[in-house]
Amino acid sequence: MSAGHHGPGAAGRARSMRIVDVIRRQRDGVELTREEIGYLVSAYTDGAIPDYQISAWLMAVVLKGMTKAELAALTEAMLHSGQVLDFSDIPGRKVDKHSTGGVGDKTSLILAPIVAAGGLPVPMISGRGLGHTGGTLDKLESIPGFNVNLSLAEFRRVLRDCGCALIGQTAEIAPADKKLYALRDVTGTVESPYLICASIMSKKLAEGIDALVLDVKTGSGAFMKKEEDAVYLAELMVETGRRMGKRMMALITDMNQPLGRAVGNANEVAECIDVLRGGGPDDLRELSLVLAGCMFYLGERSSSLGEGKKRAEEMIANGAALERFRRIIELQGGDAGVVDDPGRLPRARQSVEIASPSSGYIAAMMCEQIGTACVVLGGGREKKEDAVDPAVGITVHKKLLDPVAAGEPLCTIYYNSDARLEEARRLLLSTYTIGPQPPAALPPLVHRVIGE
Amino acid sequence: MSAGHHGPGAAGRARSMRIVDVIRRQRDGVELTREEIGYLVSAYTDGAIPDYQISAWLMAVVLKGMTKAELAALTEAMLHSGQVLDFSDIPGRKVDKHSTGGVGDKTSLILAPIVAAGGLPVPMISGRGLGHTGGTLDKLESIPGFNVNLSLAEFRRVLRDCGCALIGQTAEIAPADKKLYALRDVTGTVESPYLICASIMSKKLAEGIDALVLDVKTGSGAFMKKEEDAVYLAELMVETGRRMGKRMMALITDMNQPLGRAVGNANEVAECIDVLRGGGPDDLRELSLVLAGCMFYLGERSSSLGEGKKRAEEMIANGAALERFRRIIELQGGDAGVVDDPGRLPRARQSVEIASPSSGYIAAMMCEQIGTACVVLGGGREKKEDAVDPAVGITVHKKLLDPVAAGEPLCTIYYNSDARLEEARRLLLSTYTIGPQPPAALPPLVHRVIGE
Repeated sequence: MSAGHHGPGAAGRARSMRIVDVIRRQRDGVELTREEIGYLVSAYTDGAIPDYQISAWLMAVVLKGMTKAELAALTEAMLHSGQVLDFSDIPGRKVDKHSTGGVGDKTSLILAPIVAAGGLPVPMISGRGLGHTGGTLDKLESIPGFNVNLSLAEFRRVLRDCGCALIGQTAEIAPADKKLYALRDVTGTVESPYLICASIMSKKLAEGIDALVLDVKTGSGAFMKKEEDAVYLAELMVETGRRMGKRMMALITDMNQPLGRAVGNANEVAECIDVLRGGGPDDLRELSLVLAGCMFYLGERSSSLGEGKKRAEEMIANGAALERFRRIIELQGGDAGVVDDPGRLPRARQSVEIASPSSGYIAAMMCEQIGTACVVLGGGREKKEDAVDPAVGITVHKKLLDPVAAGEPLCTIYYNSDARLEEARRLLLSTYTIGPQPPAALPPLVHRVIGE
Repeated sequence: MSAGHHGPGAAGRARSMRIVDVIRRQRDGVELTREEIGYLVSAYTDGAIPDYQISAWLMAVVLKGMTKAELAALTEAMLHSGQVLDFSDIPGRKVDKHSTGGVGDKTSLILAPIVAAGGLPVPMISGRGLGHTGGTLDKLESIPGFNVNLSLAEFRRVLRDCGCALIGQTAEIAPADKKLYALRDVTGTVESPYLICASIMSKKLAEGIDALVLDVKTGSGAFMKKEEDAVYLAELMVETGRRMGKRMMALITDMNQPLGRAVGNANEVAECIDVLRGGGPDDLRELSLVLAGCMFYLGERSSSLGEGKKRAEEMIANGAALERFRRIIELQGGDAGVVDDPGRLPRARQSVEIASPSSGYIAAMMCEQIGTACVVLGGGREKKEDAVDPAVGITVHKKLLDPVAAGEPLCTIYYNSDARLEEARRLLLSTYTIGPQPPAALPPLVHRVIGE
């Protein structure tokens, strides 16, 4: 259905469009029409426009920006480059959450069962980890047998059966994004809030959802280290989603330290099970409840954010969320026994503690380095083609404000190969800044709420 | 000899350079090293870097600019992507002139014989016309038999024999520029003073010259309509040439009306012969003498610009320049009889006059439209592949400040096909603004002199 959103005659008009003139207008800051952007995207996806013209255009977008109307047109064209799912035959408002990625950021695995148990379908299409951040698909695949590669028909069946399903991107969803992202990756055109927004939103809107909650991370472990950059991206995404008729909210949340204590794949799944059982680290539980509350509110299962959060707490307290997680695993071919016995998850053969070199208080953490240490040990990817070792991980014992004595463990590494153990150890040691006095206060978990 | 200017070990270091990181630094305004730019150019020329990465880099250069050092490195790398000619065995300082192009701009054909006759070798490698501007090669080819496609060995022989030779770009000269220009043309990255400077200077410096005079056009018939843009480009070129040890001057000259009265190919050659005979239009003769004077001065055949201009006048007055033109034509295989009988040049079968619709004074001319009218009639190129009809042309009877009566001819069209005659006629009629009073003053022929 590529280019199917154009009106009759558009193809003929589009063919006579000179791409070089469109590139020059973007370069000169002249607003492109919806039709021009639609043609650019569909003709590129079809192979009618070469990479070298699109990469010049992408660089012009990175350096000159886009208007809101151009961004909406770009997102819409990318969305309609493939299938747009329609779950209107499944009752309830379909909701999802998207995070821009961080270290130890595992809330998707907690939110999907809570929100499904609370009555809202969650058709979740996720990504893999790249660089210092982990990915939902890699975490799920650490559950023995779990299949994230469902067809769209199977995705629909699982969603209908248990109210949520968790899969990876398929070839049918936003193929324009796949092709554009591969080009951006090798042409220095990844870092643009407009292109990031269009990439995220085109994939998420293809899920057939009614509402979307965005978790935009900021801080030393986030892609956007500066809060103002996170806010700018969040506002673009909220506005773009609303133009497409979706209910939208964005939370700017803290990533100056890992979320929870577990970083890796199997150990993050185990921590999620802890939270679904009513335990787990405070920050991870709290953020999960807040995000689930937003989803219930936007999905019209609660009349306020506070009531939504309360509903999320109930789904944990009454065991419904945990049961729902068990059911997802079963339906997607995984070993649901891990819910009762996380020891069935892959375990690394070796572990080593990183001892604190001095006494004091944790004053700052270079959070990104913890994610990089995990990658170095094989628990993440440096390149897209890399395999991931699900058993590798890091458990963080000391976080911001914690007192620490010299020799006390800051964190524990779980590993199978010691090829790059020293590099990981150095990264983790230099992650921590230990000061003589406790810092004034912890950064807030939620910095800002945008929308609704 | 591609990349031959790098020191030992550079190839190894270069291979480990990640091109995407180089693109990102250019995008972020971080100065690239000479080695990085050298690698970018040589690896692109060799096919080791794909078009889509270079086009993103080119757009970053267009939008973020370059430092003087980066520009020098780019020019140097493009220059050394091919052969750099060495005429040190031919006595005298080698000089050339380059013009950024205009309508009726035909001084190269006048300057080469004047300066050669005055004792300085002129190894001139020129281009073809594209868009509204004509090209030296097309003009020369209107002389029956004239061969602009000499090998470099033949080029050297003609230069040694008569002190000047006029050829087109060969595959050996700056191949990086050829490949980069083709990519710029289709990616909206032509319009950058840095890329224009590197393109011009890499080709001109490959000619093995000691000094270069630049004629940078400004006004309604130039690429740079605004004088400040022309000055900026001129300063970049003068600085870049000097960094390479060349003596440099740039004149910012007027292009608010055609230079001389002839536009086209055969008729421009005829007008050049008029000037070489001591006649011709005042503005064309004057600018040719000034430019030749600059060349004599930079080539150390005169101790001042004024003395240089006087030497140029002498070369016309004593017939030496005309004889030299005859000799060039003979040596390059052309019919030298055109010098005595311009009627031997190709002639169009039909002509028509454009009558003035009103009486008054010529207050302004949209000079670019005259060039476009010539293209429309087949006397120039819309696309690189187009053939040029050498007989087609326009003679301009009325220029700025001239009084005109209603019905009096503004210009005459010489044509062979009337397929687009009406379009040409409309363009020419709308070129002229006729006012009731004469305008205050003519724009000066030379707006500014830069360098020396």
